[in-house]
Amino acid sequence: MPFLSESPDITAENPLMALVLGNTMLSTVPGISGAGQTPEKTLLTPNLDSELVMTGSIASMSFKPNTPTGCPTPASITRSMMQLTGLLPLFINAGLRHQPGVPCLDMYGSPGGDPRFGDAVPDACGLFRRGEMAGRFLSRCSDLLVLGECVPGGTTTALCVLKALGYDARVSSSYVENPVTLKDEVCREVLGRVRNAGTSDPLEILRLAGDPMMPVAAGIASTYSGRLLLAGGTQMLAVAAVLKALGRNPPPLATTVYVRDDSSASFPRTVEEVGAVAYYVDPNFANLGHVGLARYCIGEVKEGMGAGGAMVLASLMGFAPEEISKAIFDFVREYS
Amino acid sequence: MPFLSESPDITAENPLMALVLGNTMLSTVPGISGAGQTPEKTLLTPNLDSELVMTGSIASMSFKPNTPTGCPTPASITRSMMQLTGLLPLFINAGLRHQPGVPCLDMYGSPGGDPRFGDAVPDACGLFRRGEMAGRFLSRCSDLLVLGECVPGGTTTALCVLKALGYDARVSSSYVENPVTLKDEVCREVLGRVRNAGTSDPLEILRLAGDPMMPVAAGIASTYSGRLLLAGGTQMLAVAAVLKALGRNPPPLATTVYVRDDSSASFPRTVEEVGAVAYYVDPNFANLGHVGLARYCIGEVKEGMGAGGAMVLASLMGFAPEEISKAIFDFVREYS
Repeated sequence: MPFLSESPDITAENPLMALVLGNTMLSTVPGISGAGQTPEKTLLTPNLDSELVMTGSIASMSFKPNTPTGCPTPASITRSMMQLTGLLPLFINAGLRHQPGVPCLDMYGSPGGDPRFGDAVPDACGLFRRGEMAGRFLSRCSDLLVLGECVPGGTTTALCVLKALGYDARVSSSYVENPVTLKDEVCREVLGRVRNAGTSDPLEILRLAGDPMMPVAAGIASTYSGRLLLAGGTQMLAVAAVLKALGRNPPPLATTVYVRDDSSASFPRTVEEVGAVAYYVDPNFANLGHVGLARYCIGEVKEGMGAGGAMVLASLMGFAPEEISKAIFDFVREYS
Repeated sequence: MPFLSESPDITAENPLMALVLGNTMLSTVPGISGAGQTPEKTLLTPNLDSELVMTGSIASMSFKPNTPTGCPTPASITRSMMQLTGLLPLFINAGLRHQPGVPCLDMYGSPGGDPRFGDAVPDACGLFRRGEMAGRFLSRCSDLLVLGECVPGGTTTALCVLKALGYDARVSSSYVENPVTLKDEVCREVLGRVRNAGTSDPLEILRLAGDPMMPVAAGIASTYSGRLLLAGGTQMLAVAAVLKALGRNPPPLATTVYVRDDSSASFPRTVEEVGAVAYYVDPNFANLGHVGLARYCIGEVKEGMGAGGAMVLASLMGFAPEEISKAIFDFVREYS
């Protein structure tokens, strides 16, 4: 298997990895998100993950943002890529329940509401505009932006948004057993609300059914003037679909083969329908000798905190697949 | 009078104007700060000023951050320089009472307490560390950083910090009649607390007597790798003095001649004692034909939101003094 499905034709003098953090209250619905030890603790995962990526350890709380089965958070992959490349990540707070422990470019949004019961992101338009401001600023800071996210429960909002935009999508999950039925039930209710609202405006759809990461990431992508890679699976695909619906060219995506190969989802097909391109990285976790990482290969976690894009970025910067895999293994052995 | 007292020997490919916002509860003590229509409203001035600099108008509230006498906020100068140069400012939230309306790089600090009655900045060390992180990030974004601030009431905390560090300083004020007696009374009480604490550590002094802007700005200055100008009067001088006390070279300052010529303060002498260099800009407000701007010449406002440094930056970028003055006049006529 090649390390990269296809090498993006990108060179960069000054690449930047930026990670949009957000919450949706959907992650507290039992069974929706595996990104945390309990449903309530999933709300803290962006905070813990950003601390891990920034500092290499988690000092602020006594537990780790791993899955209930002990699979290491994908943030540990992103962390090891930042160490390997010497890049400094930028965190963007789109709307968190808890105040983060690392500096963030803050959009002053709120956590997303449960879209079954009310508007998910009442200020989607404001967040999009602030994302546009951020995109203009980041254009001055870099010539390549690898834009990832951390939103526990966000594959469910991604499913709602993709379907509301007319795609017959199925989405990935951080669980081995994708809780398809539960997600579909949520989605049916949300699509009912979208239908009742009678709108096809993409920012209205985000207001009704999305999460705060989406308008922020879409706004950034709208104004960023350098090369852009959306680092993530179905959640970033939803952002690409929103951009398409806004009349813009959907940016390319970078994610792991674990997202591509998820047979319960429809990632490659929906990428094609959106008219985007996706690059897939295969970090060979099956053969590294780490039980937790090997679980990625049976479909657990798969992606998050821009992990796939971070590996692609390291590759673009000239690091060999072996260096990349070794950096991840060394860090995860230490951390988890 | 020359436009610049001396031209800094600086060329920059990619300059950045960053503005640290913060509050100290001292600004709500009647008579301390003129940066707002009422003592309570001074807390909102960083929010209103940042909105003005970013967007060119204030839509979020129905009043303007001008002085009670109608003197236009110095943020209007900074705004017109951003328009003239085409630069995008970055706001850094060090600790505000009210959530800002523009995206900020947020250090997740709190508003500074009244240092007469308790620790002013309990987390000064944490804010310094986050400032260091921000400085490293900004080093990747720019090769010249013009770092200003907006902290109503901050000349009083600056006075406390400069005195606690051993300087026989007197500080400027946004009032024509500098409320020296009131400031000195506050300062006497605060210095008593510092003496009781028996510390000479500069970050401890900030904890006891400073405001949240100071450790953040000092942290940024500690790690920023490009050229740096501290844009401001006595408040930035306090930051330079903290850096000196931390064993670092105090960065150069850029401010207006109105700060230099304030006979109730001791700016040039204290700059010399700190071992820094200051560049002074004379925008010739006396002769522009705007009553509010002319009040700067009789000693009102004088400086704020990095206004002096913004004019120096425009000059460094090749704009002529007449272009700079005209841009300010045109904007202020429209705005106030």
